[in-house]
Amino acid sequence: MTVPRLSRCECAPKPRPVVARPAPARVLRLPDPLPLDGGGTLARVDVAYETYGELDGSASNAVLILHALTGDQHVASPHPLTGRPGWWERMVGPGRPVDPARHFVICANVLGGCSGTTGPACAHPDDGAPYAMRFPVITLRDMVRAQGALLDTLGIAKLRAVVGGSMGGMQALQWAAVYPERVAAAVAIATAARHSAQNIAFHEVGRQAIMADPRWRGGDYGGEPPAAGLAVARMAAHITYLSEAGLTEKFGRRLQDRDALRFGFDADFQVESYLRHQGLSFVERFDANSYLYITRAMDYFDLGQEHGGRLADAFRGAGAAGVRFCVVSFDSDWLYPTAESRAVVRALHAAGAPASFVELRSPFGHDAFLLENAELRAVVDGFLRAGER
Amino acid sequence: MTVPRLSRCECAPKPRPVVARPAPARVLRLPDPLPLDGGGTLARVDVAYETYGELDGSASNAVLILHALTGDQHVASPHPLTGRPGWWERMVGPGRPVDPARHFVICANVLGGCSGTTGPACAHPDDGAPYAMRFPVITLRDMVRAQGALLDTLGIAKLRAVVGGSMGGMQALQWAAVYPERVAAAVAIATAARHSAQNIAFHEVGRQAIMADPRWRGGDYGGEPPAAGLAVARMAAHITYLSEAGLTEKFGRRLQDRDALRFGFDADFQVESYLRHQGLSFVERFDANSYLYITRAMDYFDLGQEHGGRLADAFRGAGAAGVRFCVVSFDSDWLYPTAESRAVVRALHAAGAPASFVELRSPFGHDAFLLENAELRAVVDGFLRAGER
Repeated sequence: MTVPRLSRCECAPKPRPVVARPAPARVLRLPDPLPLDGGGTLARVDVAYETYGELDGSASNAVLILHALTGDQHVASPHPLTGRPGWWERMVGPGRPVDPARHFVICANVLGGCSGTTGPACAHPDDGAPYAMRFPVITLRDMVRAQGALLDTLGIAKLRAVVGGSMGGMQALQWAAVYPERVAAAVAIATAARHSAQNIAFHEVGRQAIMADPRWRGGDYGGEPPAAGLAVARMAAHITYLSEAGLTEKFGRRLQDRDALRFGFDADFQVESYLRHQGLSFVERFDANSYLYITRAMDYFDLGQEHGGRLADAFRGAGAAGVRFCVVSFDSDWLYPTAESRAVVRALHAAGAPASFVELRSPFGHDAFLLENAELRAVVDGFLRAGER
Repeated sequence: MTVPRLSRCECAPKPRPVVARPAPARVLRLPDPLPLDGGGTLARVDVAYETYGELDGSASNAVLILHALTGDQHVASPHPLTGRPGWWERMVGPGRPVDPARHFVICANVLGGCSGTTGPACAHPDDGAPYAMRFPVITLRDMVRAQGALLDTLGIAKLRAVVGGSMGGMQALQWAAVYPERVAAAVAIATAARHSAQNIAFHEVGRQAIMADPRWRGGDYGGEPPAAGLAVARMAAHITYLSEAGLTEKFGRRLQDRDALRFGFDADFQVESYLRHQGLSFVERFDANSYLYITRAMDYFDLGQEHGGRLADAFRGAGAAGVRFCVVSFDSDWLYPTAESRAVVRALHAAGAPASFVELRSPFGHDAFLLENAELRAVVDGFLRAGER
């Protein structure tokens, strides 16, 4: 089957020369306006996506990969700007649990993102200027609806699986709630069915850091983004992605590149230097307004609340349709701790949905889902293969 | 005995009218330059302090209270600017574990602070302009040495106890290490003998938020402080003072003052509004440069490293002098978790120092040491009375 290719969205970042030749960027304009949870519709929606492998004749081997807050569609191929490997090549690729040899793999930049899909940096249809804060506040369900419309256009009625970690895992759960008939299996890793008060609090710090930067200018920063604020936001968030033990193991109190404290405010400790680097490198690849909108969407996420306050009711349709679930948590993840995954599994069981659950050990906190982890690969591989038998 | 009273330091904040009449501010100029861990000396050091109760004839009933990062000397009397009650009236006051009826209570603003003791907002002796970033980077040991010099001037050779939580607990441990002959007992609550990588990381986020604020101007902000950056720093830090469970109990996902999400970036959730308030109110009472210097001092704190890498060696003198220790942690404190207190207690035992330890239950995280807690009061009361029998 031939997948339609459209020209690049006008707001997609211009690729710089990179060593590895990236797969051609694909952008698809949705044929219809997208209805939004906040009311109204978004008139013109482009969705940037990547695919790997071939769709089989019955269009039954599609697997949708769902990215996290700062991820993108380049899940298994080099990022066209940075040249860095795909962000989840440990999970997606030859010999991996999601394998282009037998799966048609799709990964799309989320609605509100800044990697080619329509978001606040894109041109407003009315005047051609960036949406900026005129972009509507969106939800994870809006993101999922945009993905559903993408699949409609690609001619994919049903997915073999949706797979994601962190915000990607939230979308995987949302997929099963919104489109239970369109998904055979859902893999939700290092995630939760709602954002906790602490999750919201950390995101709010990040948003305030961005909006406190005078360069933010109410969102109308043009080519001079609020880099300092965005870097601080990233630094604060990054701490939540790591475990205390992992930070201790990786950095401890080791000094940057000298033997003694310098009694100053430069980065004395390795962990300071690391965090500063995380902040600075992030601003080169991410849009500040997108960060505001996507964190807001995550904070709004409460799958149970969307279904009358009872999480199990979110999964009734999935239970009836026989959607299979695989839920994975990591013992050192304090951002979305195991208790959150257990709550999801209890709700799935209450809804009559088959759900397997495992808590994996890792010292790396929330980040573990992105890192080398043979157990994680084995769990997802086994789960997907069981559904294909 | 009459305690000397000096005029207010010229950098002390001007008090506004308050309902409760504050105790007169006391500021003492140290007679000698203060030697610093970073090298050199600080020529002119004022120490602002408060006292409660009367020093007995043998000058043997003095208890030094040590405040935390953003605390001050107003431990048991209203703050002269805000009119709010003393920050630890639950621990210090009539019928409390530290009781002015039998103790001469002293609490001094730390070196580098902004409540009357010499810090970056104070006038540099050379030119009368604020030190700002010309202030030397200091350590907790420097703070303790300034307190020691204060006590010299007050004619107090030995303390019945040093008592502190958080950074105050670190100073209590440091007191026992620096002046084992001058302290009979040390109470260290919700604290650690060193700052972990995660502790440093959170502080670094706060410092970067301040320094990223254009109003910071390399520290020379004069009367227009980097309020936005300081507020973000406070917000990030404040999350670490609370537990995830405490935040959930206190706020959960409850909305601010309406029934539905507003699909915007105003504070929808109560936890957002609370954090913003914490940030905004903080900037009215705290100096941004002081925040930089005191967080730096905390990050530099590593009592074991100061003694050849072995924490027990820090307490050898205390063990020989028979200093008694009381160490208290809270089970939901993830900033200075119980494991850190256990490490302190192990080192104390290895040094031959009598040490009692208790982990108290509380849902309130690190903040628990400041909140109503009958068990905490009973533990400290019993410990102090045992030493007085």
